[in-house]
Amino acid sequence: MAKTLRINGKRLYASLAELGRIGAYTDERTKIIGVNRLALTAADGAGRRLVVKWLRQAGLRVTVDRIGNVYGRRPGREDGLAPVMMGSHIDSVPTAGRFDGCLGVLGALEVVRTLNDAKAATRRALIVGFFTDEEGCRFGTDMLGSATATRRLALERAYALKDRNGLTVKGELKKIGFLGAEPVGLLRPHAYLECHIEQGPTLRHKRLDIGVVMGVQAISWQELAIAGKSAHAGTTPMSFRRDAGLSAARLNLALREMTRSGRYGREMRAAMGAVRLAPNMVNVVPGRAVCTVDLRNPSDALMKQAEADFARLCRKVAKADGVAIKSRRTAKTPHVPFDRSVQALIAGQADRLGLSHAPILSGAGHDAQEWSRLCKTAMVFVPGEYDGISHNPREFSTLKQCADGVNVLLGAALVLAEEKR
Amino acid sequence: MAKTLRINGKRLYASLAELGRIGAYTDERTKIIGVNRLALTAADGAGRRLVVKWLRQAGLRVTVDRIGNVYGRRPGREDGLAPVMMGSHIDSVPTAGRFDGCLGVLGALEVVRTLNDAKAATRRALIVGFFTDEEGCRFGTDMLGSATATRRLALERAYALKDRNGLTVKGELKKIGFLGAEPVGLLRPHAYLECHIEQGPTLRHKRLDIGVVMGVQAISWQELAIAGKSAHAGTTPMSFRRDAGLSAARLNLALREMTRSGRYGREMRAAMGAVRLAPNMVNVVPGRAVCTVDLRNPSDALMKQAEADFARLCRKVAKADGVAIKSRRTAKTPHVPFDRSVQALIAGQADRLGLSHAPILSGAGHDAQEWSRLCKTAMVFVPGEYDGISHNPREFSTLKQCADGVNVLLGAALVLAEEKR
Repeated sequence: MAKTLRINGKRLYASLAELGRIGAYTDERTKIIGVNRLALTAADGAGRRLVVKWLRQAGLRVTVDRIGNVYGRRPGREDGLAPVMMGSHIDSVPTAGRFDGCLGVLGALEVVRTLNDAKAATRRALIVGFFTDEEGCRFGTDMLGSATATRRLALERAYALKDRNGLTVKGELKKIGFLGAEPVGLLRPHAYLECHIEQGPTLRHKRLDIGVVMGVQAISWQELAIAGKSAHAGTTPMSFRRDAGLSAARLNLALREMTRSGRYGREMRAAMGAVRLAPNMVNVVPGRAVCTVDLRNPSDALMKQAEADFARLCRKVAKADGVAIKSRRTAKTPHVPFDRSVQALIAGQADRLGLSHAPILSGAGHDAQEWSRLCKTAMVFVPGEYDGISHNPREFSTLKQCADGVNVLLGAALVLAEEKR
Repeated sequence: MAKTLRINGKRLYASLAELGRIGAYTDERTKIIGVNRLALTAADGAGRRLVVKWLRQAGLRVTVDRIGNVYGRRPGREDGLAPVMMGSHIDSVPTAGRFDGCLGVLGALEVVRTLNDAKAATRRALIVGFFTDEEGCRFGTDMLGSATATRRLALERAYALKDRNGLTVKGELKKIGFLGAEPVGLLRPHAYLECHIEQGPTLRHKRLDIGVVMGVQAISWQELAIAGKSAHAGTTPMSFRRDAGLSAARLNLALREMTRSGRYGREMRAAMGAVRLAPNMVNVVPGRAVCTVDLRNPSDALMKQAEADFARLCRKVAKADGVAIKSRRTAKTPHVPFDRSVQALIAGQADRLGLSHAPILSGAGHDAQEWSRLCKTAMVFVPGEYDGISHNPREFSTLKQCADGVNVLLGAALVLAEEKR
């Protein structure tokens, strides 16, 4: 049976388009229509209600847990066995497209619709889940819902998080009607699958249909505060300057050199994404710079080495430039490896469908990394156009790209759902 | 007579302190008292009225010209000869000390008070002048009053300049009661002298009492707009990045290398004072950078060479980094050399007073550079403490440092005022 089942790509794509109209806005500069469904806003609430309606129309029993995660359950033939969960999120950054997260949720819904159409039963129950505030843009903590459901984050701590206006997660959940009754931390799936856009250029560039996600690379964020001395750019001889902006520039270039050196593996990534100078005036040598450092590496050991070497470099630059450099860690997550058997299953399903594929690392965090602590987990990536641009209204994957990923998701879910143990 | 005359340092310093109380404020962080007498504000008006009162008390005939410059005239024995003018400005940046500009104005007043006390006459008339909006912080054009008086800037254009709130120079002059009747552009002094704090560390560091200012270095400002491509810092492989912030960093370091190379003389100065990245987020490769470049050189030819080489460098970096770099000139003033005979006179007066001195270039613009187009001109610099910090409440020169400078001013003015032609 599973061999001939195919999802309905047009239906999937139509659902993505319809959900994308909730929170839609027109980018002023490009006139491209984007999506803003920031977590727990009215738009997020409206999006959630639409998806809940679709889940129910697909015959699923919908429950909402105390952190607002939504689960739609399709019973199995042996319904006492742990279910296979597929999911992702439907909240967005303020300047999003329609694919990030939504493909995983509506893809899972499409899997259920396809099984319904075929009147196909599975041994284990299937769950379509979507999780609160994956993006973390509003309350400062990403993967909020899945981290709470998997007990990395305590419910009371999650509730107390505030946005810039002092509004709490709990209050905002209540306001949009998604402060559920279901306890968190009890659901323990048999396996977790998530289909997602790559959000990078690699698959598209290599003309691959499917990325079999090996895991999420380690992430290290720090903020550097560089204290030099502001001085008149006309009257201060070069030898007297303690230019905090110059030190930041040196470190930016040093990061690039580190990625090129090969010392930290071929997959080390680094960026100085934000720089703020003070007083930031044309004719004043910057006395202060605050800048961010984002390091990524698939190896925790190589990440540790890179962090240590960069810290040493900071001390060297501080001494050479006569500035003080203080570093504050702002995020740190270890490498999350996904389950090898599920990766093999995904690769096998892609082969069966005649789709090209390759293993790939996720550069971004995903709900899957949280669920991977509870059950065997892997992800299916699909390519994106325009170098895989994401968190941007230009984010775009074709109907075929989306359908390919969800067909792999269907095939993998059916195999997992038949497993006896 | 002139050989024995000395100014009253205590009186000078008391006047600086009293003027410094107008527009005074306490810096929130350091608790140091600063001065805010932004041009043509109520505080500037109050400062002007105090100085006008003092000029009149010293027996000077006060006139105000149409751009608000104030002149206090002390008649000479041969009053038909062109006068010797001493002056500077009393407007300030919003975060100033009490010395910048004020030392030149109250120093000139102290010269007159000293001559009055000694009942000393001069062949040529003496003028104490202070000029409107030297700082340029409010209406965007520095040396506004002296540039208008010396006809570099047309009166009607000066009048029409607006601040951020749309208020015009003319309206604001009228509001504070300093829209004078005297025509601009008629005054042509025999010589112009200005005593000023160095606003840099050189004199203090070399333990020199007096700087004999050779001129004002050439200034070149440009704003660079660097367009790369914003991208996810986690998912975008290094080889795909077009990091506008990295290109700005490269150019910042290149500027520092240029100053070290010796190719543009020993006195080339360069700073990237302001950098703004977009979107300026920890996990996004910057797609856009706007940064400023401030170049200084005492040689117009070397400045031209530095500008051309830097432009070439920008093209090279643009090509290497896959970004587009557009440059917009925001300011350009040529080197202004001061009169050699007046410099020699100032050096001689310092020698006569037993003060150590050396030639020095001004890194900042001053009213003297405007008057130098009309008459022989030079400036006397005095050292400042704390590496000569200026445009800052910590700006500080001692009583002796100030008095030394004004004694040199007195001696030089007396010689110039006795010249027959």
